[in-house]
Amino acid sequence: MAPKTLELAQGLLKGERVCLSRAITLIESTNPEHEKQAELLLEYVLKNRRPGKSAFRLGITGPPGAGKSTFIEALGTMVVKEMGHRLAVIAVDPSSTRTHGSILGDKTRMAKLSVEERAFVRPSPTRGRLGGIAQHTNEVILLAESAGFDTVFVETVGLGQSEIEVDQCVDMLLLLVPPANGDELQGVKKGVMEVADMIVVNKADGDLKTLARHAVVDYSHAVQLARRKREGWTPPVKKCSAATGENLKTIWEEVSKFKFQMRNDIADRRMEQSVAWMWSNFDDQLIRYAHEDPKIVTSSANLQKNLTSGQVSPRHAARDLMKVFLETLKATK
Amino acid sequence: MAPKTLELAQGLLKGERVCLSRAITLIESTNPEHEKQAELLLEYVLKNRRPGKSAFRLGITGPPGAGKSTFIEALGTMVVKEMGHRLAVIAVDPSSTRTHGSILGDKTRMAKLSVEERAFVRPSPTRGRLGGIAQHTNEVILLAESAGFDTVFVETVGLGQSEIEVDQCVDMLLLLVPPANGDELQGVKKGVMEVADMIVVNKADGDLKTLARHAVVDYSHAVQLARRKREGWTPPVKKCSAATGENLKTIWEEVSKFKFQMRNDIADRRMEQSVAWMWSNFDDQLIRYAHEDPKIVTSSANLQKNLTSGQVSPRHAARDLMKVFLETLKATK
Repeated sequence: MAPKTLELAQGLLKGERVCLSRAITLIESTNPEHEKQAELLLEYVLKNRRPGKSAFRLGITGPPGAGKSTFIEALGTMVVKEMGHRLAVIAVDPSSTRTHGSILGDKTRMAKLSVEERAFVRPSPTRGRLGGIAQHTNEVILLAESAGFDTVFVETVGLGQSEIEVDQCVDMLLLLVPPANGDELQGVKKGVMEVADMIVVNKADGDLKTLARHAVVDYSHAVQLARRKREGWTPPVKKCSAATGENLKTIWEEVSKFKFQMRNDIADRRMEQSVAWMWSNFDDQLIRYAHEDPKIVTSSANLQKNLTSGQVSPRHAARDLMKVFLETLKATK
Repeated sequence: MAPKTLELAQGLLKGERVCLSRAITLIESTNPEHEKQAELLLEYVLKNRRPGKSAFRLGITGPPGAGKSTFIEALGTMVVKEMGHRLAVIAVDPSSTRTHGSILGDKTRMAKLSVEERAFVRPSPTRGRLGGIAQHTNEVILLAESAGFDTVFVETVGLGQSEIEVDQCVDMLLLLVPPANGDELQGVKKGVMEVADMIVVNKADGDLKTLARHAVVDYSHAVQLARRKREGWTPPVKKCSAATGENLKTIWEEVSKFKFQMRNDIADRRMEQSVAWMWSNFDDQLIRYAHEDPKIVTSSANLQKNLTSGQVSPRHAARDLMKVFLETLKATK
């Protein structure tokens, strides 16, 4: 391990925020030397962190318009200021594959929470590949945990696959929804609800109060019909207003209840999650290795000619490429 | 090729809908024998289809609540009944990883369009893995095209990664939005707009007419600011009402304009797409091969023990697994 990496790891274990920041930047780098150092850093941190220190991981997901940022800022500020927690917020950001830029607004969104000494806010770009969410997020969580944060919020945008991936890195998944219900949303809700451990109808204030009450009833019905995610836990459906702060305490009480009541389940899940990350990491390494193989580079260029003439299907070309790869490897004894 | 597969391929090339249905079921199967037959079917179809017959592929995406089903049914019915096209609608359905069930409603949603003789409506489940969208959708498009459908709509749900994947299988991507604009939606719009070739504000009827007009102005501004996806094409922003049918003709005129004006670009993109599918197929085959390797199965079981004790990071375990895989392959000379 480079002396700078060791310094970083030690600073991180002391809970220095700037070291945490720099460590996250290091593990997000695709520079091969950085990757090596990142791995060494992670190993060091795993071996040297205080035993038994583990942060509770709350995933927060919801469709655009649910008010996730406001909710996280309000709940986070309460948790830090009134409950004495040290909180890290990781905003998972499925970046645009075209620009590799952020599609979330920048992190200044959580201006109030960001300045809290006991809070750490960080967007976590995933560089195109959706499978990258779990991998990086997990490592970021591990770093935050080692830096002494006892609570981690993982925010994810969208109503698609990303919350299912995020669910693979958290202990509990909170689905935040706006006070509305349309025919099309019903279909989506069903899928997302299967992974949600709690549903919160936000914006239950002003003109939307009645609508929010109806939404709670609708979601409660839907929860009854949905397939149960875990034994021994029925996802509660609550409403709140992140803008006025109303009912945020109730939300946190439910989270705490889950944390206590499901502690064995949480421990089991974390083990399963580690194994899943190992595989996803392995797949990435394997793909990269194969794509960089010189024989594969040459063969794929030739196959592309047949492909573009439309005489061979991509599936067939891929099979040919696979043969080349296996033969090349066997020959390199 | 099994005689049944040949029969299927020949029926498909004659444009028999039931054969198209059965062929799609075949390529969606993960049974190894079915996969082999599916590949033979695809090769046969590629070699024997009428040359020069290629369907125009329109991707339709948008957030939940935009009214995609109603829009597709209305536009599709018009295209089939008034413009004389033969239309296949493929609804890409990012299935729940937990249940492997559908999160979209069932296909009876498009009851009117489904009964049209010149239309074919089919949901296309993707079995969890998001990368599966491009692969399967492309093969389904190829089959529909070979069965004589000259127009294919690919519908996708969500505001996440899925529309970027769908963009990789279509000639043009239409983003359908509801007449609304919130702060949070702004961020998402930017990312999605980078891949959209046209934006349509739906539900421009009744009480929402004014809001829709404002939304058109907002999106037009945003399009001006967004990074240009293609040379020579500025995504038009239009409004329509799928419910009343108002302005659907204008929408289709814009689509036709794109189809003609961008024909060279479309041809280039298709070539790039074929190459991308080859790689995604290759990656899948590679991963499957490695996961089924007996040495990998044994080693991973051992590594899991170290993982769950928390002394080794998933990244490190994956690297160990990679070494085992490469050594095993080299030894099997």
